[in-house]
Amino acid sequence: MLTKNSTLSLSEQLRDRFAQRIQSRLLSAGARLPSVRQCAQQQGVSPSTVVAAYDQLLALGLVESRRNRGFYVREFTNFYTKNQPVSGVSIAYDAINSAANNANHLETNAPSVSATQTPATMRAPTPAPVNAAMLIRGMFRQAGPKPQPGMGVFPPEWLDNPFLSAAVRKVTTPAALKQFSLEYGDPMGDANLRQSLSNKLAQMNISAAPSQIISTVGATHALDVVSRTLLRAGDAVMVEEPGWAVEFARLQALGMQILPVPRRADGPDLDVMAKYCDIHKPKLMVSVSVLHNPTGYMLSPHSAHRMLQLANEHNFHIMEDDSYSHIAPDHATRLCALDGLQRTIYVSGFAKILAPNWRVGYMAAPEDLIERLLDTKLLATLTTPALLEKAISLCIDQGQLRRHATSIRAKLAAARGRTVKLALAHGCTFASEPAGLFGWVDTGVDTDQLAQRMLDHGYLLAPGALFHASRQPSTLMRINFATTQNAEFWKVFKKKVESVG
Amino acid sequence: MLTKNSTLSLSEQLRDRFAQRIQSRLLSAGARLPSVRQCAQQQGVSPSTVVAAYDQLLALGLVESRRNRGFYVREFTNFYTKNQPVSGVSIAYDAINSAANNANHLETNAPSVSATQTPATMRAPTPAPVNAAMLIRGMFRQAGPKPQPGMGVFPPEWLDNPFLSAAVRKVTTPAALKQFSLEYGDPMGDANLRQSLSNKLAQMNISAAPSQIISTVGATHALDVVSRTLLRAGDAVMVEEPGWAVEFARLQALGMQILPVPRRADGPDLDVMAKYCDIHKPKLMVSVSVLHNPTGYMLSPHSAHRMLQLANEHNFHIMEDDSYSHIAPDHATRLCALDGLQRTIYVSGFAKILAPNWRVGYMAAPEDLIERLLDTKLLATLTTPALLEKAISLCIDQGQLRRHATSIRAKLAAARGRTVKLALAHGCTFASEPAGLFGWVDTGVDTDQLAQRMLDHGYLLAPGALFHASRQPSTLMRINFATTQNAEFWKVFKKKVESVG
Repeated sequence: MLTKNSTLSLSEQLRDRFAQRIQSRLLSAGARLPSVRQCAQQQGVSPSTVVAAYDQLLALGLVESRRNRGFYVREFTNFYTKNQPVSGVSIAYDAINSAANNANHLETNAPSVSATQTPATMRAPTPAPVNAAMLIRGMFRQAGPKPQPGMGVFPPEWLDNPFLSAAVRKVTTPAALKQFSLEYGDPMGDANLRQSLSNKLAQMNISAAPSQIISTVGATHALDVVSRTLLRAGDAVMVEEPGWAVEFARLQALGMQILPVPRRADGPDLDVMAKYCDIHKPKLMVSVSVLHNPTGYMLSPHSAHRMLQLANEHNFHIMEDDSYSHIAPDHATRLCALDGLQRTIYVSGFAKILAPNWRVGYMAAPEDLIERLLDTKLLATLTTPALLEKAISLCIDQGQLRRHATSIRAKLAAARGRTVKLALAHGCTFASEPAGLFGWVDTGVDTDQLAQRMLDHGYLLAPGALFHASRQPSTLMRINFATTQNAEFWKVFKKKVESVG
Repeated sequence: MLTKNSTLSLSEQLRDRFAQRIQSRLLSAGARLPSVRQCAQQQGVSPSTVVAAYDQLLALGLVESRRNRGFYVREFTNFYTKNQPVSGVSIAYDAINSAANNANHLETNAPSVSATQTPATMRAPTPAPVNAAMLIRGMFRQAGPKPQPGMGVFPPEWLDNPFLSAAVRKVTTPAALKQFSLEYGDPMGDANLRQSLSNKLAQMNISAAPSQIISTVGATHALDVVSRTLLRAGDAVMVEEPGWAVEFARLQALGMQILPVPRRADGPDLDVMAKYCDIHKPKLMVSVSVLHNPTGYMLSPHSAHRMLQLANEHNFHIMEDDSYSHIAPDHATRLCALDGLQRTIYVSGFAKILAPNWRVGYMAAPEDLIERLLDTKLLATLTTPALLEKAISLCIDQGQLRRHATSIRAKLAAARGRTVKLALAHGCTFASEPAGLFGWVDTGVDTDQLAQRMLDHGYLLAPGALFHASRQPSTLMRINFATTQNAEFWKVFKKKVESVG
């Protein structure tokens, strides 16, 4: 992609490419740049061009040279660019976990979905060059105009629907605005929205009065409020692995001890959970029952029942993240439905189905936790904007959300069919049965390295390391079925897999 | 206020009054109810009526009876209903602080503004009956239709302005909505708003590029994001005292060691700060330079300079909360202007001047902190709603905010004049020169007790204890000049002061 026709010299272009990745933290602090020879080969330029580019990066203070060891991205403090847990944060990699992973590798019938698959060739001490910031920022700043396989949401054109603006216009008449803009409003959230949500939850057999529902700034904020309320720094919390990078990063930033629980097709590994409970006395488990991210797995009724038994026995809460609720099949098993919101807290939002920027999410929680959860919301944001909550409420009540979700599910099923065929045809296998928005794909090569190469071609990948609590390199990657339907991506992909392999 | 014409008996009315206060936590867990005799006297009912009411509260599980000691509100866990710091949280009441307070009591020229003024009669071991939840919840749920002296915002009718809805309508056309609703948007916040804010800050001599500005869910969220980014549990943080209850509560909930710095007319007590720096190595100071809440004090240029010197010497950051910026006099001294956003972080919002429910706030920070602050925002809420940010941006750019603020300032000056006269005429003195939205009034009696009595008459007060890190009872209270202009309030007030005294 370096070009001689540019107004910049080749070394300047190379410098800028690295600088951009360092500044946007696609290259971690502490990561080693490729050797001069490697880089020259990869980029098709002379070694002296690379040396010139590296010298400029040195001058910019972005990298440092270590005698006889090469060039490294300069250290700066940031809680999720580090490959090592930050001080004060620990991840329990004890005997339990190793045993679980070993067991996992011995399974032959079910494909292993642990992100810890580490081919011998990857065990080099070099830090992983791609970090969690890549995917997280990638959600916001598109790497290019191409469809992005690493994305976590539907493409905007899928979400475009006239009812969204119609709903907003209804709640922004001068009289309506005046009525709810000029005071702080109810810290619980808009009363209309909470009533609509209560009705909606009832249809999933989750019985939650409006007084048990608190609105938030997207589901992310709900996860944050629950964690801050139930946990204090140092507390142990169980999280499914593989799992979503932002969840790991948030709990790490809050100083929690993360206990990764291997996720199986039917639910989290219950034996590992039981052993954690005995040793670490976790206060909370974070779980995605329905269309688990990234595997697409669905919790079985039996696993759900046993999880709740464990929670009762060992006195911990379960936060059920149901972000993909709107594209879930009917009659999916949810912990909150079984439990009746006794030990469980339900979290969801509308970013995955209506308008990501509106940031409307919510939690439904046991009566006896509501006041404490509300206090945390108050201290963090006081209240949340009623305008958008009222608009979402209208979309629910008028049936538009339901109809929209039905049509999105059909569209997604078709996309998934096309993408699965393409992936298989280009040498990938699926580590789990394709379902929902994401495919969990085994590429056979280090996806951290693959992600770097693909970025040169304008594609942002979500490598498996992102879904692992300690960010171990992996051959797995998550793809978005809606954005990987075209053969062009897969052609480039196959070439790059060969170049890494 | 109990009435025989009600459909409820007198004891039921009394039961409901207490139940309501306990449930809304106006009565703290652990607080003792008045003795039967006291209560009967206060309410003008027979002792048997009180006994019947207390029995019903017992049956409801809201209070417990302790043998020979009376009735107490039942314990429940909540981080700001407790009068004692929660475990893991400490407030440094060391020799420094006592010395500072003693010095304070010896000053004769300047009125003491410490909330620690504790008449001997208040030193009883009974927990304070009014807690921080009172004021905080009072901001959201009006105690009655009367103007509320404890309120922290302007009455809604002051804020009502047609330009607000005009601005919203402009940014909610179908095309505009589609453009920014269907993707997550820029985690930094809407680009238009950040440009408008950059221009606005320049007028206050604060030079901040749009790339140094991050939008938040109100100023509260900005304060939260900064605290979470710069501090880890157990870190020491200096906070001015008296100060705003929500700030103390948030830092306590985050597990910080709070170092209260007495606030003087010209700024925080620099000697106390210097000693704290030597002993506790604080990482952050939280300061309200302009129209300090609750005293109305303004930072002097000399104090500002010395604060920044201390910050440089002892390597801490200062978070300058400028929530009252829009009603501040021109040419007020701000730390961020002197410092050029090197060690200072500026925080403000629009809840106090435009639309409290829109929850638009922001921070402007040193370049080298922006990425870390942004990460914290991402983990907490991902992005914030662009719609309301765009509307605020329009109000700034079109000059409507400036004109509105000018008119509010004039209105407030007139209200302040009337209120000050009424306060003085009813036996109050001012602990600080009246300025801005709040008066810091000395009533001569325990304002915790006074607040309970006033609530019987539908008035919510902000007693001095709320502004003190350890919630010591105080004779001081904060009044909102805009909501205490009528003689009716002051008449009731005077009567209740006499009944407490």
